[in-house]
Amino acid sequence: MNIPKGFLFSAVAAAIKKTGRLDLALIFSEKEAVASGMFTKNNIKAAPVRLNMKRIKSGKGQAIIVNSGNANACTGKNGMKDAIEMAAMIADALGLKQNKVYACSTGVIGTPMPMEKIRSKTAELTDNLGRKTINDVATAIMTTDTFPKVISKMIEIDSKTITISGVCKGAGMICPNMATMLCFIVTDANIDKSALDKALKNAVEKSFNRITVDGDMSTNDTILIMANGLADNSLIKLNSKEFNKFADAISDITYELSKMIVKDGEGATKLVEIEVKNAKNKKDAEKGAFTIANSLLVKTTIYGNDANWGRIMAALGHSEISIKEEKIDIALNDLKIVSKGIGTGMDKEANERLKSKEIKITIDLHNGRSNAKVLTCDLTEDYVKINAEYRT
Amino acid sequence: MNIPKGFLFSAVAAAIKKTGRLDLALIFSEKEAVASGMFTKNNIKAAPVRLNMKRIKSGKGQAIIVNSGNANACTGKNGMKDAIEMAAMIADALGLKQNKVYACSTGVIGTPMPMEKIRSKTAELTDNLGRKTINDVATAIMTTDTFPKVISKMIEIDSKTITISGVCKGAGMICPNMATMLCFIVTDANIDKSALDKALKNAVEKSFNRITVDGDMSTNDTILIMANGLADNSLIKLNSKEFNKFADAISDITYELSKMIVKDGEGATKLVEIEVKNAKNKKDAEKGAFTIANSLLVKTTIYGNDANWGRIMAALGHSEISIKEEKIDIALNDLKIVSKGIGTGMDKEANERLKSKEIKITIDLHNGRSNAKVLTCDLTEDYVKINAEYRT
Repeated sequence: MNIPKGFLFSAVAAAIKKTGRLDLALIFSEKEAVASGMFTKNNIKAAPVRLNMKRIKSGKGQAIIVNSGNANACTGKNGMKDAIEMAAMIADALGLKQNKVYACSTGVIGTPMPMEKIRSKTAELTDNLGRKTINDVATAIMTTDTFPKVISKMIEIDSKTITISGVCKGAGMICPNMATMLCFIVTDANIDKSALDKALKNAVEKSFNRITVDGDMSTNDTILIMANGLADNSLIKLNSKEFNKFADAISDITYELSKMIVKDGEGATKLVEIEVKNAKNKKDAEKGAFTIANSLLVKTTIYGNDANWGRIMAALGHSEISIKEEKIDIALNDLKIVSKGIGTGMDKEANERLKSKEIKITIDLHNGRSNAKVLTCDLTEDYVKINAEYRT
Repeated sequence: MNIPKGFLFSAVAAAIKKTGRLDLALIFSEKEAVASGMFTKNNIKAAPVRLNMKRIKSGKGQAIIVNSGNANACTGKNGMKDAIEMAAMIADALGLKQNKVYACSTGVIGTPMPMEKIRSKTAELTDNLGRKTINDVATAIMTTDTFPKVISKMIEIDSKTITISGVCKGAGMICPNMATMLCFIVTDANIDKSALDKALKNAVEKSFNRITVDGDMSTNDTILIMANGLADNSLIKLNSKEFNKFADAISDITYELSKMIVKDGEGATKLVEIEVKNAKNKKDAEKGAFTIANSLLVKTTIYGNDANWGRIMAALGHSEISIKEEKIDIALNDLKIVSKGIGTGMDKEANERLKSKEIKITIDLHNGRSNAKVLTCDLTEDYVKINAEYRT
């Protein structure tokens, strides 16, 4: 896997997670980078989220320390002290300014951070920094994820090769704004701050903000991007041809990562795309798609290979969007199961198509011109099992 | 069980449900009754719901025919023809005006009504009318319900004994406005139409509109009440002392029935009451309570006997209501687990209390003076199983 120039990675097992797996990681740029970030809209924000929201205002960053196993959320004033200390330890060890270091946490809410464990591992974490350990970072941030999520992409701009790498974690509590989710993207692109902000915002809007596993939203959602300029291209500015190319690459990265999150939805067996077409307006299209995607009855009927399209109609009906029942068409993996609001009698064929691992449900409202797509997964007994036993 | 004067009941097995259990029922008042009704707010309404909404405008009723196994929803123009015919057959057989007969359906959406089966059973249905079969009606309207839901209550007004009986069905797709739910209440009270409307509205607001199983809302929710006046009390008018007594009794009936619905939530093992106290306003209190009640992560943590209160905080945070994290107290069956936004360290004791079959979670926001209570249940593997296999 290609890694952007000037970035080093490290991960250690600090026994924050019960199992003693990798749970503390570090991302470091040898050169100060332009940085941008987006954060959970949950009114209850973990301490490190609040810290990062303050620090990102400088538009700069050089390191990210991140742990799994403890979210450092609902931990009061001590939580903020601990987040600051986590970042400060890295700043000290690497000789960086404190406000250029970001701290992120994911895991159980409401338990004080085991700071002794983190303190005792700082030296190992910085000593181990290397070029080939981005996969370890992806592994160290996992909670109920079943596989590490990492992706890399290269583009040419200005005859220079620019590399972009991203890691993320997801699994449960996934809903827009954003997934319960940490995502870190690093690139050696030379890019102006406002261009980086815009590229990230566009990309998140079309990816992480369009996925849902269970309708819950976390206290810790964070996406950070750092661009250190070491690819040596001439500066990418907003709305240039080069900007578009770069922004498309970031969108590809976040789309692929968000798809991995849904595929790894807790207990999920199927990836489901819900598309609402020809809604009255954009808001209706999105609300309709999300209401269907979050309906437990729809999710379980997909799991059960049962094309019970009445549940899709019922979800549409209670989404409060503008619809005309007698105009609605529904297709399941391109097979029309509802025409003008009435079943086409193709349920048996549709049940067969539901056995696929990738399901596409298209709802044409014939009520306007706005479309929206949402990615989700099915709901299984394993989702319940995983979440009933999470802390035990 | 005491039954209001002048009401007769009947139920037969018409093979609409696969198993050949009771699935077609009739409620009949020997005297034309004052009637009131409330119906689903889902934008997609089953044909019989649309028919009843029209007929209830007369304020009168004398019979209700109801089937389970088929919802007669998303069935186009034929659906309306079938609903009208169902009512007409009863009107003919009993010599009633057509518009005094209501038709209700619950079951699978999108399948044409098996009218032959219903036609062939009409005579048996009317022939069997009797005084002791209200339990059979409760059984005939069950879908995934595991027990029939029926209740009776007597009050004295004006030295006359008034009897009120109610039956309902619920189970899945339960969410306010209203549960997926059919509910029929009959009484021999002599009451004025506007008083009956108000009593019903009050009662539903505090019961069926305050329960949630899975956040979905059905196309068929219907509650109908008929009062035939045979108790011979002097007319109950709006806002009199007698009205208050009658309205309280109706509220008791609907509260008990709604509690039965939640207890019988698909796969549920626990009855859960969520109370949000001292919210900024009524809307916030309700929205907060419903967001917690509908959170899959909260529902599964309750099922797993794990007092993971961080999930309650996270749900509050994304409910978009006004909160101050550092003021929030949370108690679980009267044990304080969060004080001023931070855990009290009582998680182990709380886990023990979660083993109870009735769970009460109290969230005090200390942010105003409005309170709201919502009833819900836990989420289990069985919910998934039941809903993945519903039609198969």
